[in-house]
Amino acid sequence: MGKKMLISIVMGSDSDLPVMKQAAEVLEQLNIPFELTIVSAHRTPHRLVEFSENAHKRGIKVIIAGAGGAAHLPGMVASMSPLPIIGVPIKSSNSIDGWDSILSILQMPSGVPVATVALNGAKNAGILAAQIIGCSDKKVMNDIIKFKENLAKEVEKKYKRLEKVGYKVYKK
Amino acid sequence: MGKKMLISIVMGSDSDLPVMKQAAEVLEQLNIPFELTIVSAHRTPHRLVEFSENAHKRGIKVIIAGAGGAAHLPGMVASMSPLPIIGVPIKSSNSIDGWDSILSILQMPSGVPVATVALNGAKNAGILAAQIIGCSDKKVMNDIIKFKENLAKEVEKKYKRLEKVGYKVYKK
Amino acid sequence: MGKKMLISIVMGSDSDLPVMKQAAEVLEQLNIPFELTIVSAHRTPHRLVEFSENAHKRGIKVIIAGAGGAAHLPGMVASMSPLPIIGVPIKSSNSIDGWDSILSILQMPSGVPVATVALNGAKNAGILAAQIIGCSDKKVMNDIIKFKENLAKEVEKKYKRLEKVGYKVYKK
Amino acid sequence: MGKKMLISIVMGSDSDLPVMKQAAEVLEQLNIPFELTIVSAHRTPHRLVEFSENAHKRGIKVIIAGAGGAAHLPGMVASMSPLPIIGVPIKSSNSIDGWDSILSILQMPSGVPVATVALNGAKNAGILAAQIIGCSDKKVMNDIIKFKENLAKEVEKKYKRLEKVGYKVYKK
Amino acid sequence: MGKKMLISIVMGSDSDLPVMKQAAEVLEQLNIPFELTIVSAHRTPHRLVEFSENAHKRGIKVIIAGAGGAAHLPGMVASMSPLPIIGVPIKSSNSIDGWDSILSILQMPSGVPVATVALNGAKNAGILAAQIIGCSDKKVMNDIIKFKENLAKEVEKKYKRLEKVGYKVYKK
Amino acid sequence: MGKKMLISIVMGSDSDLPVMKQAAEVLEQLNIPFELTIVSAHRTPHRLVEFSENAHKRGIKVIIAGAGGAAHLPGMVASMSPLPIIGVPIKSSNSIDGWDSILSILQMPSGVPVATVALNGAKNAGILAAQIIGCSDKKVMNDIIKFKENLAKEVEKKYKRLEKVGYKVYKK
Amino acid sequence: MGKKMLISIVMGSDSDLPVMKQAAEVLEQLNIPFELTIVSAHRTPHRLVEFSENAHKRGIKVIIAGAGGAAHLPGMVASMSPLPIIGVPIKSSNSIDGWDSILSILQMPSGVPVATVALNGAKNAGILAAQIIGCSDKKVMNDIIKFKENLAKEVEKKYKRLEKVGYKVYKK
Amino acid sequence: MGKKMLISIVMGSDSDLPVMKQAAEVLEQLNIPFELTIVSAHRTPHRLVEFSENAHKRGIKVIIAGAGGAAHLPGMVASMSPLPIIGVPIKSSNSIDGWDSILSILQMPSGVPVATVALNGAKNAGILAAQIIGCSDKKVMNDIIKFKENLAKEVEKKYKRLEKVGYKVYKK
Repeated sequence: MGKKMLISIVMGSDSDLPVMKQAAEVLEQLNIPFELTIVSAHRTPHRLVEFSENAHKRGIKVIIAGAGGAAHLPGMVASMSPLPIIGVPIKSSNSIDGWDSILSILQMPSGVPVATVALNGAKNAGILAAQIIGCSDKKVMNDIIKFKENLAKEVEKKYKRLEKVGYKVYKK
Repeated sequence: MGKKMLISIVMGSDSDLPVMKQAAEVLEQLNIPFELTIVSAHRTPHRLVEFSENAHKRGIKVIIAGAGGAAHLPGMVASMSPLPIIGVPIKSSNSIDGWDSILSILQMPSGVPVATVALNGAKNAGILAAQIIGCSDKKVMNDIIKFKENLAKEVEKKYKRLEKVGYKVYKK
Repeated sequence: MGKKMLISIVMGSDSDLPVMKQAAEVLEQLNIPFELTIVSAHRTPHRLVEFSENAHKRGIKVIIAGAGGAAHLPGMVASMSPLPIIGVPIKSSNSIDGWDSILSILQMPSGVPVATVALNGAKNAGILAAQIIGCSDKKVMNDIIKFKENLAKEVEKKYKRLEKVGYKVYKK
Repeated sequence: MGKKMLISIVMGSDSDLPVMKQAAEVLEQLNIPFELTIVSAHRTPHRLVEFSENAHKRGIKVIIAGAGGAAHLPGMVASMSPLPIIGVPIKSSNSIDGWDSILSILQMPSGVPVATVALNGAKNAGILAAQIIGCSDKKVMNDIIKFKENLAKEVEKKYKRLEKVGYKVYKK
Repeated sequence: MGKKMLISIVMGSDSDLPVMKQAAEVLEQLNIPFELTIVSAHRTPHRLVEFSENAHKRGIKVIIAGAGGAAHLPGMVASMSPLPIIGVPIKSSNSIDGWDSILSILQMPSGVPVATVALNGAKNAGILAAQIIGCSDKKVMNDIIKFKENLAKEVEKKYKRLEKVGYKVYKK
Repeated sequence: MGKKMLISIVMGSDSDLPVMKQAAEVLEQLNIPFELTIVSAHRTPHRLVEFSENAHKRGIKVIIAGAGGAAHLPGMVASMSPLPIIGVPIKSSNSIDGWDSILSILQMPSGVPVATVALNGAKNAGILAAQIIGCSDKKVMNDIIKFKENLAKEVEKKYKRLEKVGYKVYKK
Repeated sequence: MGKKMLISIVMGSDSDLPVMKQAAEVLEQLNIPFELTIVSAHRTPHRLVEFSENAHKRGIKVIIAGAGGAAHLPGMVASMSPLPIIGVPIKSSNSIDGWDSILSILQMPSGVPVATVALNGAKNAGILAAQIIGCSDKKVMNDIIKFKENLAKEVEKKYKRLEKVGYKVYKK
Repeated sequence: MGKKMLISIVMGSDSDLPVMKQAAEVLEQLNIPFELTIVSAHRTPHRLVEFSENAHKRGIKVIIAGAGGAAHLPGMVASMSPLPIIGVPIKSSNSIDGWDSILSILQMPSGVPVATVALNGAKNAGILAAQIIGCSDKKVMNDIIKFKENLAKEVEKKYKRLEKVGYKVYKK
């Protein structure tokens, strides 16, 4: 990409990729350079330490970390990094409807926050990371404002069509 | 305070103040200027709109919003502001063990993230807000690094004493 | 339809239509004029305000609002309208078994009620809206009484057949 | 009271009175005549049938029914009355955190709605009943509009004082 | 069947039949005469009253009642019958994972018990009904003892085969 | 007591006695002879086997078993006795709001039912045991019919007083 | 195998085999001799007693017990054996999302522990059993250390490939 | 103590001590030498790494780790140690009824087991650790057998007294 990476997207397993790539896609759309890789808190603990302690030294501004089940990755990264950490709970195959993942990420103790988004909410994690970058980058802020306006426009198209054709015809 | 407000702390009701003031206290400790007030999504919807649409124009960089029960404040602010919004679920008197508040804040739809922290986790919301400011403010970043070192030192004091006096004497 | 709209059915997204059209269908069956459209609390907040503040001025008597996940639409409409608001929790694709939607709609704070029906219970929302109209409209009240008698008759047909043919033959 | 009763408030047990009287109080405040009594679905089933089948014949327009645990009262009244039924789940002493009461009232089958409010939300049940009356009674509608304006004014007083005295002084 | 009916199996809807017929099948196997029909608490409340008040007068000894969602049938039968009532929670299509049905049946108030079995546990309901008949009928008691011995024998066959062929071959 | 014991009440620990004695009290009231003791599935497994296999040989007709937490007592008694077993889930000090106890007792596998009553519902367990005895004992059946009539009369007294004095005076 | 069995794997039903064989497979991989069979707490209680009381006399060091629903097998084995018992909660067909199985196994009373692993976590049960053997067997301990190193290596291969090919190509 | 430490008890915070010291007390009773200290996964991550990687080199055989909320300590120790790790979920002040702590500890991914005990079950963690030591230490095994016999004897005393004095006198 040639540009300096601002966001790091990490996940506990490559089985999380179908969810986590949605964070990557929205960052591409918003032109914010990012990296994406696997860091397993439970299987590669040394890599976890190395990654967490050095991300801010490499110029990373925000970390997005996704994991399922007893999801320790976001919280453990948060324990070793001064950066804002965004946690994405993932409903993996052996998860208990996602509750384990949500609570393992959300309920961090005092002093070590994780910014948790909705279950499988990787796209929102990407948007949130962009909003954080946007705090000190006018261009990104403006892109977010446009992004939100587009959300409204898409809904507008839909309700106009729905009101025009009626609910019996819509979606046929 | 004389300094430009960077963080806005809002809550749905003054009954949320005992929890939400912990965000204020940690921001004071980290020397980050903030404002604190009440905005009720359900009782003052116009104030909600006015606040949400203008916060970023006033120079606010991050909004911390706390609410209990069917907690719509953080999500509704997020729908109208391009800023990163931190949501604090509050276990209020008629809440169902806090589940209503957590789910109402966390499970935002695609496009409109809220950075949710733990139940009653207002202190962590304050730290997270500081971390976001720290992304573009070296001094704040350094203060956060020191803050985290202090967390470790406090634990160090405790385990040294515990190991010295033994678990039967500790806490007497 | 030529008749004055009495009921407004709104939903947060067109993905809610397969559920919400059941409210429309029962109102058609009961000959109560209604309108149906999309109002997204999170993506079209201005439309939300405009819709909520004016519905009663346009002669609408009851609003049915359906949404999934962190479902803020029914509660936010209720905060800006003096009308009775019926909320339909929807089990959308990323919902946590519907709990998020139920609690976000049901657990409204004191002063701002939402009349919540069962998960995906849009048909019941339509009946409830008709019952509210029936409070001051004898014809509608009589239609509801007949509707309920039909419910009993349908069950009667079934148990008579079941008792006649026996459980081994029934449903073949 | 001399006026014709419009609302009937019933509860399963006199232990529900501390919650349910909040419905009565808000209806008094809004000048809407009501009756209040005990009807136990499980202990007085004949009274249940008699009450449910005749309420609308006596001129009652809305029924508010509160119960705890396996709360069958609202749903059973709904099965025998054409009126809109508002259900109030009550967190009674042997309830499982209120979940039993909420689900027993909310999850009614197709054809038989109950307008469920928040756990212990009897005050909101009263307001909702008033809103239903307000659909065909201008004076009541206006009173509700004023009631909602007062909600905003009360919050206004609080946030003005909070902004003036600051969060450290407020509530002392 | 020619014999006097001892058990009555009722269900709220014919959609419950695939589950509830398992109660019938086990009673056939144990040679206990039973009847099976539909009684809807919410759609046929008069039939409910008539059925519940008269079952014991017709010689019925035990009632098995199954229902899903806000399942009021077992509890309402219990309120009007002096017989032991066995409740079968059913995981119907709109149920919230069966929790609504379980709690609506289990959490009956003091004075009005329902003997609740596992979710979809109609077969166990049949066995339990037989055990109740067995309290005063030696032949039925002996049949139950044999039934339980057969349960052990079936397991015995399986573990002997598993131990003989090994887990890699078993089930091929 | 001189009379032959018909019901056996067992509990896992003497800490369950405050709940379980309510079963004893209602059986005394209904003049049904019973025994009451402690059988711990986890601490006295041999006593469990001995008790469960012999109860019906001693003439016991129904067993009421109460336990908290991972409550195995009712199910294990059921595995070794042909009698109807009534399970009472108890909300003990380390229980998770009673959910563990309820699910451990209710969710028995096919072939081995336990008649589960509400959380802490020992009184209802006693009534249910009496109803089972009443299936073949006219006197007990009549006592139960009277018991239920008294339930209605008690409610009658209360609603008459409430209707007479009004909700503001009642309970003073 | 010729070697002395050290681990016994038991399950409540042969329907648990697809999950439980994963414990067998990992023990084979780690060269630890084991036996595998069916012991049903509810259908073969005598076999349960005989098995539990004698396992340690036969030289068994660790027991792995898996069961679904109201899963009493692990806890009942623990009540009669001095050995460490590992419990595997199984999400069986009639389980309530696995909650019943987890709570029935985990929430054992004081004095009778069961070492519970994740829902369907039979592979982890096998590893844990090996770790227990490894406490006094250097070779097994070394095998476990190698096993864990391999976990890291497998992740390493994946993240290297992901970083090389990028998230858009990976998994095609 | 002079003897070589075999068990290490660690906890995330000194607020966990009132629960975790119960593990220490039962190990003292069973004469098994142990150490006890604080290791915070989130506040002292380096100490966590150092402790986890070296415990088995120091001769520790089993680690007991207790934590509340998003409880990462047991799982993170397990990721870096080849020893059996026993996890104790703790119901801390901001926990959501203990669910967060249970799920964060129990739901570990494949390859990294934690032997989880009941909520606040530190005493059982101590017994389980002793059972693991007992696998290769006859004296400890015998002590556990005696410990379990004593559990039975204590219950025996209680039921004998209860049967003698009756439930009305017992506990006075």
